[in-house]
Amino acid sequence: ALKSGKIIKKNFRVVGGFKSKTSFKDIVTTTDTASQKAAHLILKQGMRKLGFKDSEVGFVEEESLINKVRTHSFIIDPVDGTSNFASGIPYFCISIAYARNGVLQAGVILEPLTNTLYWAQKDKGAYMQSDLFKKKRLKLTPKPINSWMVVGSFPDVKSFNQRLEKLSLQVRGIRILGAIALDLCLMADNVLDGIVSHGCYVWDLTAGRVILNEAEGEIFDFKGKKLEFDWKNTKTRYKFIACHPENKKKLLNLIS
Amino acid sequence: ALKSGKIIKKNFRVVGGFKSKTSFKDIVTTTDTASQKAAHLILKQGMRKLGFKDSEVGFVEEESLINKVRTHSFIIDPVDGTSNFASGIPYFCISIAYARNGVLQAGVILEPLTNTLYWAQKDKGAYMQSDLFKKKRLKLTPKPINSWMVVGSFPDVKSFNQRLEKLSLQVRGIRILGAIALDLCLMADNVLDGIVSHGCYVWDLTAGRVILNEAEGEIFDFKGKKLEFDWKNTKTRYKFIACHPENKKKLLNLIS
Repeated sequence: ALKSGKIIKKNFRVVGGFKSKTSFKDIVTTTDTASQKAAHLILKQGMRKLGFKDSEVGFVEEESLINKVRTHSFIIDPVDGTSNFASGIPYFCISIAYARNGVLQAGVILEPLTNTLYWAQKDKGAYMQSDLFKKKRLKLTPKPINSWMVVGSFPDVKSFNQRLEKLSLQVRGIRILGAIALDLCLMADNVLDGIVSHGCYVWDLTAGRVILNEAEGEIFDFKGKKLEFDWKNTKTRYKFIACHPENKKKLLNLIS
Repeated sequence: ALKSGKIIKKNFRVVGGFKSKTSFKDIVTTTDTASQKAAHLILKQGMRKLGFKDSEVGFVEEESLINKVRTHSFIIDPVDGTSNFASGIPYFCISIAYARNGVLQAGVILEPLTNTLYWAQKDKGAYMQSDLFKKKRLKLTPKPINSWMVVGSFPDVKSFNQRLEKLSLQVRGIRILGAIALDLCLMADNVLDGIVSHGCYVWDLTAGRVILNEAEGEIFDFKGKKLEFDWKNTKTRYKFIACHPENKKKLLNLIS
C-alpha cells in the first residue's frame, strides 16, 4: 500500500496519463496500472519468501479484471476514487484485502496525500495512523440521528433522490465523496455514521469491510442481512448500507 | 490564514469543543472562534502598522456575525466546512477576503491539512502552493461536458433533486463536498467544472470569488447575471452557479 501510495501521490494533479475505459465515467489512468503492478509484485514475492507456491496464491484486481480466488487471495483496488483522482479531488485511496479460503482475514487502506493508513486483522482490532494522527484503535459509536453524517452515491439517480430526500431532513449532513473504501475507513473512525450505496464492486468493499467490522460497524444489504460477496463473479455490483448495527433499522427505515 | 490554519489543524478530530448554534446542522466549535480571533488580531495590528486608523478598518465575520464594512474591509470565514470539521471529514478551509470601498481586491484560502494555500489579487492572477505542489498559476479551462466534475449542495432538497437529476446523466461525476470556499479553489485549479449551490453567505464566497475570477471563472445567479453581494445584510443567502463563462449557458440549461 505504501509503495502504491507513493506512485499515486507523485502523479496527483499531473496532467496526462488519462485514457478512457468503458465510458467517460470510468476512467483509468496509467497510474492505476502502475499502482496495481507494484502491489501485486510485492505480495507475490512476499508469499514466495514465506514458502507458498504460486498456485496457492490468487489475486482479484480491478484494473486487470482478473479473478483468481485461491487458498490465499489478495483483492486489490489500486485507486479507489478513480474519478476523484482523475479530476484532482483530494479524496482517494489504495485498498488491499487478504482472504483465506474465501474468508476475509485482513485489510489495509492508504490515503496517500496525508499518508493516513488504516488497517485491521480479523479479531485483532482496527487501527489508523498518519502524518496527522498518532496510532489509535478505531471504534464506531452509535450517535443520535441529528448528528449523523451520511454518504451517498449517484449511480441510480431516481432511487438516490427518493432515498436521500427523507434522510437529508433529519441528519447533520449528506455528502457524496466518491471513494467508498475511504468512506468505510472514516466510518470506522466514527466520522461517518451511515453509507448508502447503489453500485460497488468487491474490490471497493473487502479491505474496508474488515476495518469496519473490527471497529464494530457492518455492511448490510437493503433487506438488513449482512452483505454476502459473490467471489465467483467480480462483475457483481452491490447495493448496501453501512452503519453501526444498532442504527441499522433506523437507517433502512429512512431510505425505504 | 496560516496562523488560523495551525489552530484548526491542531484540533482536527480531537474530541470535544463542539457546541450547537442555531441548529444541529450548524455547528460551532471553540476552534472556529479561536481561528477567527487569530486572523482578526493579525489583520488589525497589520493595518495599524501600515498607518491606517481603526475607524477605517472594518470586518465581516461569520462567528461574531459582525458586519462593519468600512473603507478597508476584511471578510473572514474562520472555518468553511464547519460540519465537515466537526464530523472529521478532511475537507475544510480558512477564507479571508479584502475589499476596498466594497470592491473585492484580494482573497486567500488555506486548506490546512495539506497546507495548500490559494491566493489572488485583483488583476494580478491566482496562485496555489502546498506541501504537495510547487507554486503555480491557476487557470480554469472549459472542458467537454462528459468530463465535468460538478459539486452540489443539499439545503433545498426538492430543487437539488430536480436540478441535479438532469446533470448527473451527462457529466463525469457529482459530488457534495461540504466546503464551498474550497470548492471555488478547486474550480480555479481546473478540478471542478461546475458548482450549483442553493444557500451560501457572503463569507463563503468572497475570497473564493477573487481567486476564481483571476483564474477566469465566474459566479452567476440562476438568471445568468454576475452575482452581486449585498454588503449591508450579511444574512443574505445566495443561490448561484460557478463555472467558466463559456459553460454558463450549458450549466444553466442543465439545471433549469
